[in-house]
Amino acid sequence: MSRWEPDARGRLEKAALDLYSERGYEQTTAAQIAERAGLTERTFFRHYADKREVLFGGSSLLEEFFVDTLAGTPDTAMPIDAMATTLETVATLFLERHEHSRQRQAVIVANAELRERELIKLASLSAALAATLRRRGVKDPAATLTAEAGITVFKVGFERWVGDNGERPLSDFLRESLRELRVVTAGG
Amino acid sequence: MSRWEPDARGRLEKAALDLYSERGYEQTTAAQIAERAGLTERTFFRHYADKREVLFGGSSLLEEFFVDTLAGTPDTAMPIDAMATTLETVATLFLERHEHSRQRQAVIVANAELRERELIKLASLSAALAATLRRRGVKDPAATLTAEAGITVFKVGFERWVGDNGERPLSDFLRESLRELRVVTAGG
Repeated sequence: MSRWEPDARGRLEKAALDLYSERGYEQTTAAQIAERAGLTERTFFRHYADKREVLFGGSSLLEEFFVDTLAGTPDTAMPIDAMATTLETVATLFLERHEHSRQRQAVIVANAELRERELIKLASLSAALAATLRRRGVKDPAATLTAEAGITVFKVGFERWVGDNGERPLSDFLRESLRELRVVTAGG
Repeated sequence: MSRWEPDARGRLEKAALDLYSERGYEQTTAAQIAERAGLTERTFFRHYADKREVLFGGSSLLEEFFVDTLAGTPDTAMPIDAMATTLETVATLFLERHEHSRQRQAVIVANAELRERELIKLASLSAALAATLRRRGVKDPAATLTAEAGITVFKVGFERWVGDNGERPLSDFLRESLRELRVVTAGG
């Protein structure tokens, strides 16, 4: 690289989210994102394949972290307890990320193509978690159902967290969602 | 219509599924489907917008039936019990449809674009069920979680049913999946 670009990736991400929020995702170009970040378009494309990648570049890292965390919980834990522990750990990734997450969610909700991409990422995450549980010896349908329950809790808790003011951590919302899922499925 | 075409829609659907299974979804054209069904291409396009529509034309009917059934369950029922009753009723739509459902599922699983379309249809169904529960006075997150639980049970039960030999009805698999979801979320 010919120039010193401290935290180019983070600057591009922030510039992209700001522009997507201000003028809409469709109306924003990679060149505009680079300009707002004070970087060149070439630098943008060194870090991201396209403007969608800025929103979803973190998804495979999240999946990897989710799977590694679940795989690392004690084998003796009930599958749903292993999932609860995993959600607690995953929530720590989002400390200091409330404003970023809120902005990203608003951009995604406003665009059908991005909503679909997010659904696909979550389905991939669910399949990866089910496979991890099966490797721990959990049979199906329990493995698939536990993974789906985990993703439901994550999705619902996450949405409630981004809709909140950011004072309470994501882990609180995930814990509440799991508790509520238990209540509704029990029919109590 | 100039010609008498008894059950043209059903014949086109069967011809399409047979061709998708034999030579693959991508390799099949609307003209070939019409020919196999002994109908004209013009007739095909009177019934379906394109070859994907043959697979997903039923999805909005399914959503409507699902929502109407849920809306019609007694208001006194717990949300998850209303969902269980709804699943029982929806399962009756699939009596005599095992072979058709098995073929359709195999075509969808083999194609990334179709898998994504199916995910989107299920997400739409989940949102519609949550909205129906909210109209019955169920608060969030309970409404969303119950709807998501219902979709998870439907998805997992449906997959197990199509993977079975067709002797047991879908309702058995949905009931088992719900019971299992209750067991895994309870951690028992």
